[in-house]
Amino acid sequence: MIQRWLRFTYQNTVRFGTLEGKRVQIWEGDMFAAPKPSGLFVDLAEVKVLMPTRPSKILALWNNFGALGAKLNLARPVEPLYLIKAPNSYLNPQETIRQPAAGGKVVFEGELGIVIGKTASRVAEAEAGKYIFGYTCANDVTVADILNRDPSFVQWVRAKGCDTFCPFGPVVASGLDPSTLTVRTILNGEVRQDYPVSDMLFSAAQLVSLISQDMTLYSGDIILCGTSVGVGSMKPGSTVEIEIEGIGKLSNRFE
Amino acid sequence: MIQRWLRFTYQNTVRFGTLEGKRVQIWEGDMFAAPKPSGLFVDLAEVKVLMPTRPSKILALWNNFGALGAKLNLARPVEPLYLIKAPNSYLNPQETIRQPAAGGKVVFEGELGIVIGKTASRVAEAEAGKYIFGYTCANDVTVADILNRDPSFVQWVRAKGCDTFCPFGPVVASGLDPSTLTVRTILNGEVRQDYPVSDMLFSAAQLVSLISQDMTLYSGDIILCGTSVGVGSMKPGSTVEIEIEGIGKLSNRFE
Repeated sequence: MIQRWLRFTYQNTVRFGTLEGKRVQIWEGDMFAAPKPSGLFVDLAEVKVLMPTRPSKILALWNNFGALGAKLNLARPVEPLYLIKAPNSYLNPQETIRQPAAGGKVVFEGELGIVIGKTASRVAEAEAGKYIFGYTCANDVTVADILNRDPSFVQWVRAKGCDTFCPFGPVVASGLDPSTLTVRTILNGEVRQDYPVSDMLFSAAQLVSLISQDMTLYSGDIILCGTSVGVGSMKPGSTVEIEIEGIGKLSNRFE
Repeated sequence: MIQRWLRFTYQNTVRFGTLEGKRVQIWEGDMFAAPKPSGLFVDLAEVKVLMPTRPSKILALWNNFGALGAKLNLARPVEPLYLIKAPNSYLNPQETIRQPAAGGKVVFEGELGIVIGKTASRVAEAEAGKYIFGYTCANDVTVADILNRDPSFVQWVRAKGCDTFCPFGPVVASGLDPSTLTVRTILNGEVRQDYPVSDMLFSAAQLVSLISQDMTLYSGDIILCGTSVGVGSMKPGSTVEIEIEGIGKLSNRFE
């Protein structure tokens, strides 16, 4: 059964629950450890939706889609290649992505996020699914101008780690098969990215297994699976949406 | 006045306080927000010393020392170049740095860490000192073999983000001038690094100011200032110590 989990503020308290139509059922306990449904429902319009988890880290893949690798003429990687999104970049759904002080061309990258459900260390690929709680939508925002301006050091962490540069949510969907999903990015109402998750070079299970060989993953941590073709820049005043049918639609302004 | 702050477990409770000779004075409240001395002292031998802060992020500079840049024939950077140490890499003093599953040559890098004392966003260089709580010792452990093995993507985050790869502490020293300090790394009793902090290309105040233009820094966050000459590999069974006179000595085993 597919469930859509969200964190939210209701009557000045942070709660979590499941989305059921236009209502939210409040759950009790720990989202990742046998939570219990309360039977109490509130209208979605009455809550402020927050980022669905509070990750200790968000890792972000580079060069993980066949179509984008082919377009950029990149060799197929023999292992997952990734960076970290700085925690100051985490942003709630509906909140505003801000132009960094230095200015520069800011680009969107619509991505699928794998949400970890329990501590994962040196997990076998065949077991990896047990450590995946679900999937979310994310925008891996990047200042394109910073990335390669120093010829000796590619500034991945800085260019992708500015304040507000990692919106994710609005929900984590559990119980679905990611290989059937399609990621769409919509800029001011126009579809700019529309690519199948099945084009990933490393699958969700492979990513969790391989990354967990070096780095322990904790519940709430997220692996952003990388983006594909159609990345582009945003003008201030834009609305950018990342939509994955079966999960939901993440919407943010850029100013 | 120089004070040496530490976090520790005493009688199964996490506390913080100041090191006073071989005793620890317990303080109350928040280390970063007007803490109060309790007047209660315990012997240092009675406590388990923990990492002195719980950072939301640790940034680590590359190419920030003149001597190492000259040795490696690197151009002087025009802006700070940095990556993030994954939170799973944070390690307490005296605990064991572990060989990653993949094996490979693991190197030590003795470094000075700047500890942030309050939220810093777009701070001017002249004001940066007000946001610095103090300084600590750190070991920026790295799997050398992973770093450059993919020709298209330097794996900074992974090579430096394995579990246990960022010991820091044992204390944060406040009230001292970092430009007078010397960083020494001692491997199995032999001095392997011994370099002056005054050789930094970007000073502590410059780092806090420049980085805070893009990324908000929070109390407890740490900026590792980069390393200098003398980096080397560790064999399993080694003891590695990072000593900065005026701060203290961080000691860990490598297995």
